Amino acid sequence: MSDVITLAHGAGGKQTAELIDRVFKAHFSNPQFTGDDAAVLPIGGANLAFTTDGFIVSPPEFPGGNIGKLSICGTVNDLSCMGAKPLYLSCAFVIEEGFPLAKVEEYAAAMAKTAAEAGVRIVAGDTKVAGKGQVDHLFITTTGIGQIVDGVHTSGTLARPGDAVIVSGDVGRHGCTILLARNQFGIDADVTSDCAPLWGTVEAMLDTTKDIHVIRDATRGGVGTVLYEIAGQSHVGIHLDSQAIPVDPAVRGVCGMLGLEPLYLACEGRLVIFAPKAVADDIVATLRQGKYSKDAAIIGEVTADQPGRVIMRTEIGAETLLPPPGGELLPRIC
Amino acid sequence: MSDVITLAHGAGGKQTAELIDRVFKAHFSNPQFTGDDAAVLPIGGANLAFTTDGFIVSPPEFPGGNIGKLSICGTVNDLSCMGAKPLYLSCAFVIEEGFPLAKVEEYAAAMAKTAAEAGVRIVAGDTKVAGKGQVDHLFITTTGIGQIVDGVHTSGTLARPGDAVIVSGDVGRHGCTILLARNQFGIDADVTSDCAPLWGTVEAMLDTTKDIHVIRDATRGGVGTVLYEIAGQSHVGIHLDSQAIPVDPAVRGVCGMLGLEPLYLACEGRLVIFAPKAVADDIVATLRQGKYSKDAAIIGEVTADQPGRVIMRTEIGAETLLPPPGGELLPRIC
Repeated sequence: MSDVITLAHGAGGKQTAELIDRVFKAHFSNPQFTGDDAAVLPIGGANLAFTTDGFIVSPPEFPGGNIGKLSICGTVNDLSCMGAKPLYLSCAFVIEEGFPLAKVEEYAAAMAKTAAEAGVRIVAGDTKVAGKGQVDHLFITTTGIGQIVDGVHTSGTLARPGDAVIVSGDVGRHGCTILLARNQFGIDADVTSDCAPLWGTVEAMLDTTKDIHVIRDATRGGVGTVLYEIAGQSHVGIHLDSQAIPVDPAVRGVCGMLGLEPLYLACEGRLVIFAPKAVADDIVATLRQGKYSKDAAIIGEVTADQPGRVIMRTEIGAETLLPPPGGELLPRIC
Repeated sequence: MSDVITLAHGAGGKQTAELIDRVFKAHFSNPQFTGDDAAVLPIGGANLAFTTDGFIVSPPEFPGGNIGKLSICGTVNDLSCMGAKPLYLSCAFVIEEGFPLAKVEEYAAAMAKTAAEAGVRIVAGDTKVAGKGQVDHLFITTTGIGQIVDGVHTSGTLARPGDAVIVSGDVGRHGCTILLARNQFGIDADVTSDCAPLWGTVEAMLDTTKDIHVIRDATRGGVGTVLYEIAGQSHVGIHLDSQAIPVDPAVRGVCGMLGLEPLYLACEGRLVIFAPKAVADDIVATLRQGKYSKDAAIIGEVTADQPGRVIMRTEIGAETLLPPPGGELLPRIC
């Protein structure tokens, strides 16, 4: 492990996991310390989910959203993945001296609108200003409390052989959007971020069935990283049908030009769901009625063989290992 | 109001209040949105306190602590001020590329030690890495959940004429420490930050009496800013006896040289308490037995006259207005 912090430590892949294990888990160890999207806290007779996320996206505005909307979606979605109805959020801003006040207001308005859609209240906040050059525009950290729906128990450790693997829509759009917004490659394509608050999506699934083993939102590192995490945490193999994975044609085009794998591009409005095959078609049917999950699809299945690995069946029927995540995944989206 | 963010917007004084009112309160308005140190949330039969704070101190290490210890103390103390036993914390890191891993580990160790002392568990976290020059060393945002002790109700709106004003120890030490640590003035003095987790201090007070109207920790803007806030929120006057305010001689010396008012220097381990005079002596006696509050003192009283103002009685018996907070308070400590 490097003796200084590298961009890879923040990319959500192998080095991030090493940093968490070596530094944070080592010091903060306790029964509630979480390897999932949120900690589960038994308080006052309720089971609460509790999660925090820092947002440092550059540029702070992109087709389909801005850092304000993103900061609410990220935390709402982490709570939703625990089967928790989002109740309350806090937000802490670090803003660069000289940043336009009108932009702060624009992001705050986006936060309020997104929070209202998710049915969550922003109840506490903090504002710090850093000197010019001490922060890149602004950072927002949101932290959320949600109440876990009775009878729901989801975790990255609960995938089982025989589960179907479902995605709630086309993959990689947010990462592709940010990459294009940075104008580093001179590519012009019509791609919009999938950034969306997903409590309504999860609630509709849970109304259909509570027999769901894992729900994860595929943010940093994309669907590929999430699948490897779950394969590891649950000690199972995951077999994907590459033809079944929904990818927007423009995203596929950009990825083709740049040699990127859409499964490793970030999403900000997509869920990966593991559930028994018997209920998978019902879940997909429900998802396809939702405004943020019209392109939901079963993309693979869980096996007892090949534990810890993600195998892709290609269009010509060959099986290959999905390259495991590691190092800095392109593009860094946060 | 300026149309760009200025350092004053983050200094904890008048401009910070304007920013919160104009931008955040305007958009995030709801019954739980808080003007106190933490929001009060009724969840599952319990009354929870919920608070967030971002820490961007420069330098990240100083006599008496580092940014890790500070980030736990700040949130533990905000919960404590609501009469809430701190239960759970989350922490979100933004770290600069190239920052030494050993330093991250040192701060994490300080966080774990301080959390253990306060009896709080760190249960959720997030790590982002920003490119070199996009963040000043590292920022830590901590968010906490605490359970409000039955029968306790504290708020900045609850100060009443006849209340005594108590401070739990000498004022201005953290701000003075940071100012000296920056080496901008060529002054060498033996000052250590008062940075400390204060749940034990508050718990001892509440065991003595629950008849306490306001508890605030005097961080950004110091005791002076807190007093003006409370005078405004409670529509009361506050009369201080300048002779009774405990100030460390070294801090007084530095302030004398630089023309600073110790009441406007930040503390990170000091409480301002408003309680009826009848219980004030008992509270001070309890505080003086605590490890972080040996120099507790009654420094003034609340009056119905002069609402919104803080009046100082000087050593020669004259009464003067404590200059209201405004603009960037020196030194910026966060």
